[in-house]
Amino acid sequence: MDSSKHWREQLYVMIFQTDTKAGRRFDGILLLIILASLVVVMLDSINTIHQNYADVLAYIEWGFTVIFLGEYILRLYCSPKPLRYAFSFYGLVDLLAIVPGILALYYADAQYLLIIRIIRMLRIFRVLKLGPYLKQAHYLLDALRGSKQKILVFLLSVCTLVTVFGTLMYVVEGPQHGFTSIPKGIYWAIVTLTTVGYGDIVPKTVLGQVISSMVMITGYSIIAVPTGIFTAELATAMRGGQLQHDCPVCKKNSHEHEASFCSRCGNALFKKME
Amino acid sequence: MDSSKHWREQLYVMIFQTDTKAGRRFDGILLLIILASLVVVMLDSINTIHQNYADVLAYIEWGFTVIFLGEYILRLYCSPKPLRYAFSFYGLVDLLAIVPGILALYYADAQYLLIIRIIRMLRIFRVLKLGPYLKQAHYLLDALRGSKQKILVFLLSVCTLVTVFGTLMYVVEGPQHGFTSIPKGIYWAIVTLTTVGYGDIVPKTVLGQVISSMVMITGYSIIAVPTGIFTAELATAMRGGQLQHDCPVCKKNSHEHEASFCSRCGNALFKKME
Amino acid sequence: MDSSKHWREQLYVMIFQTDTKAGRRFDGILLLIILASLVVVMLDSINTIHQNYADVLAYIEWGFTVIFLGEYILRLYCSPKPLRYAFSFYGLVDLLAIVPGILALYYADAQYLLIIRIIRMLRIFRVLKLGPYLKQAHYLLDALRGSKQKILVFLLSVCTLVTVFGTLMYVVEGPQHGFTSIPKGIYWAIVTLTTVGYGDIVPKTVLGQVISSMVMITGYSIIAVPTGIFTAELATAMRGGQLQHDCPVCKKNSHEHEASFCSRCGNALFKKME
Amino acid sequence: MDSSKHWREQLYVMIFQTDTKAGRRFDGILLLIILASLVVVMLDSINTIHQNYADVLAYIEWGFTVIFLGEYILRLYCSPKPLRYAFSFYGLVDLLAIVPGILALYYADAQYLLIIRIIRMLRIFRVLKLGPYLKQAHYLLDALRGSKQKILVFLLSVCTLVTVFGTLMYVVEGPQHGFTSIPKGIYWAIVTLTTVGYGDIVPKTVLGQVISSMVMITGYSIIAVPTGIFTAELATAMRGGQLQHDCPVCKKNSHEHEASFCSRCGNALFKKME
Repeated sequence: MDSSKHWREQLYVMIFQTDTKAGRRFDGILLLIILASLVVVMLDSINTIHQNYADVLAYIEWGFTVIFLGEYILRLYCSPKPLRYAFSFYGLVDLLAIVPGILALYYADAQYLLIIRIIRMLRIFRVLKLGPYLKQAHYLLDALRGSKQKILVFLLSVCTLVTVFGTLMYVVEGPQHGFTSIPKGIYWAIVTLTTVGYGDIVPKTVLGQVISSMVMITGYSIIAVPTGIFTAELATAMRGGQLQHDCPVCKKNSHEHEASFCSRCGNALFKKME
Repeated sequence: MDSSKHWREQLYVMIFQTDTKAGRRFDGILLLIILASLVVVMLDSINTIHQNYADVLAYIEWGFTVIFLGEYILRLYCSPKPLRYAFSFYGLVDLLAIVPGILALYYADAQYLLIIRIIRMLRIFRVLKLGPYLKQAHYLLDALRGSKQKILVFLLSVCTLVTVFGTLMYVVEGPQHGFTSIPKGIYWAIVTLTTVGYGDIVPKTVLGQVISSMVMITGYSIIAVPTGIFTAELATAMRGGQLQHDCPVCKKNSHEHEASFCSRCGNALFKKME
Repeated sequence: MDSSKHWREQLYVMIFQTDTKAGRRFDGILLLIILASLVVVMLDSINTIHQNYADVLAYIEWGFTVIFLGEYILRLYCSPKPLRYAFSFYGLVDLLAIVPGILALYYADAQYLLIIRIIRMLRIFRVLKLGPYLKQAHYLLDALRGSKQKILVFLLSVCTLVTVFGTLMYVVEGPQHGFTSIPKGIYWAIVTLTTVGYGDIVPKTVLGQVISSMVMITGYSIIAVPTGIFTAELATAMRGGQLQHDCPVCKKNSHEHEASFCSRCGNALFKKME
Repeated sequence: MDSSKHWREQLYVMIFQTDTKAGRRFDGILLLIILASLVVVMLDSINTIHQNYADVLAYIEWGFTVIFLGEYILRLYCSPKPLRYAFSFYGLVDLLAIVPGILALYYADAQYLLIIRIIRMLRIFRVLKLGPYLKQAHYLLDALRGSKQKILVFLLSVCTLVTVFGTLMYVVEGPQHGFTSIPKGIYWAIVTLTTVGYGDIVPKTVLGQVISSMVMITGYSIIAVPTGIFTAELATAMRGGQLQHDCPVCKKNSHEHEASFCSRCGNALFKKME
């Protein structure tokens, strides 16, 4: 019994951690299998391949599902707190990577849900000892979080602009030029404002071209807004951030990075150095 | 009479303010009605729906117009200064949200003006207690205002570029390749410079492709200008802004944020702290 | 003779300067005439208008040319140094605004050169007392000048990328998919890299689509480069710029804005304040 | 023998260095020849020219190959350490500029590899005395290196987004609307997310248009991320960088540029000035 417990612990270290050589190798192999299963799903979607190798690919896909199922059971088995794992982010993703493979037996389309396995690829950061990369991602997320409110204001303005311009173009151009409804006009406005410009719907009347010129120049200019927001936020984050604590004496509320004394009244800001 | 006045005051608090629970609920319901009325306008513009449900949608639309009319009258009634409300920004928008519904009885196209109701959605900031969001919007507007002159210089340069390139392409490509007039050429230049690129008008001659390559690279590069302007302005605004007051003694005209003493001559900048 | 000289001086003040009311009115009227002449050139390029009103427009155009000719002679006459004016930037532009109108008598296409008159619109900054705008333009030009070398390095890299990718696509896709020659491939690469994406030439083979995906993501990412360069340069310019003078004692070569004393050794940087 | 050595040294100075007039002239002529050979490759790819002048161009091309071969041998001959040159970056590029010309005798397509000669154009920086430009390029590369990790995190996120959205669109739109396979869907997602928007594959269903609207707005917004990263990094690099050395006494780890004393405890940071 004791050796079984020991074995379970060793398994836990190998599967869940990346400190040991075995653990890294396990994660590396897992990543390759995930990548391979993604490739199989993609290949199966190509018509000529599907017609000739549908059976083979289905068997391989089954193999992957069995492997992932085995891995999931192993994780549940060796985890000291199986339920906590099962309801963690990675636990749910691991489950979601198996379910579509089983569903695909009954519903053919379910197999495309297998693409969810791409989320498992997040482990790539762990296995490649990419700690610093995760920190950088954390950094970017911080900047995004800091600019969340401004971004939301921006997105709401874009939605309003797009609705107004889309309706305007529907009225000006009309269904005979492809603007068959207001939602279609809004779709056109998004395509134009974001400077994607498919060209599937295009203004034909002079007034329509004048309005769309305005939409384009607007879109071309206001891209400065999210960029400016994010850049300013990131620059602030990278500058280390000024301390936001108030000076207990004179209330000056921003001080130099790691300052010990208030730059205005000279009083100690925090605990003294000993 | 006194109770009527009391009732009017309570109504005022509920309709115009968001401090009470009733006020928030009122605004919340109003927002939902506005959203619903926008959806009805959009649905009515879709051909298959219009053919089958035109009558139903017209009745619903009428219902919305009546509700907004009632709301408008209520606002006028309970406002302590009705005229001031009527000519305020929100007052005019509230009126504009009703008029097209009545006009639509006589002119079918007027109903699309109903989309103006989207501006009423601005209340969303108020009802959701999104004070901080409004502050952020204020922030962005500040940066925009600060960069107004630079943006105008930029837009004038873009207009000049676009006119020159549009005329050039009209001369080079000519009507047989879709450049039927100088304004059309300018439209093409805007489509290209803003990197939208519909592809409805496209250079066919070698010289035309060389010129449009130049337009594209120009457009690709000068997007840096509005972005740079806005970013620098926003970063400045976020850094709190250096004080622009002159030191009364040595005339040094920029000082640290919330500085009390001139960093050059040491004299007090403003009133002393007591 | 003395009164003639006086009259010439007054004319000079009115035509060349904007300090007096007459001077501003003169420039204002001139701007309107320039704008009107541009509109005439544009209208004449529209086929339906040209067929019906070609004669009228040609007469109007002649009128404009005569007016500009008169203005040019007046400027030469009242300028204290006529030759210096004639070879100044504005002097040459003023001449170029007349020549095509005369050439158009013999060569029909020459009239489109009239669009050069748009450059005369630059006077708009002067007449509208837009001194601050000119200063802002100066500001932007400064930032552009500061980033000139980096921008050139960037443009050379883009040219190299575009040539390599264009050739690659010509080899991969071949003439049957629209890539009829290497220059055409380069044109396609520019269209794609700048994210314009007309869609007139489009990769059809799988390998071609893989390569163009790379081009797109490259183009999407490296737009950060000119933006970053310009933003950093503009931010530096807006921060007032650190002094680049060396401290005469310790050689520390960057000091705080308007600093009088070296922040390292405390010696006076420049002349003392008296 | 001594004069031969002297001659070799003189040749080395002329070919490898740009300090002498002869050296600069040599590099200038070389650059012109490289440019000419690139033009010949491009011209040869144009069908009408190829049909008429294929033989002439082939001979000219041969001439260039012989010239470059001669230059390569000369470089090997006069270089004091021939092997070191042969395996240096420039040495390999010089070799690669010859090989395709010889291969083209047997494989017609190999001639397009000649475009690799464009890399030799890097010498342009040297010959035109563009030292400062190289420094600026170094600057940009520094910023790119500094933001490498963040850019990688960004690119991985883009890849994930593009795979998920591409699969989604394949399921939603299906082969009948041009989304013939998942890789094709991913290609579409890249075209859309990067705001290129060819318009060769376009969503037709309502749900597909909703999803692609989301992709577009995402692409329009997240362009802020690489821009923000690069700008912040470049701004940091341009600000000179704060010293990252720890104060030996109080451990404050960032100090003003070229500071001699810790700004917190006043102790000397490095060696004293004598």
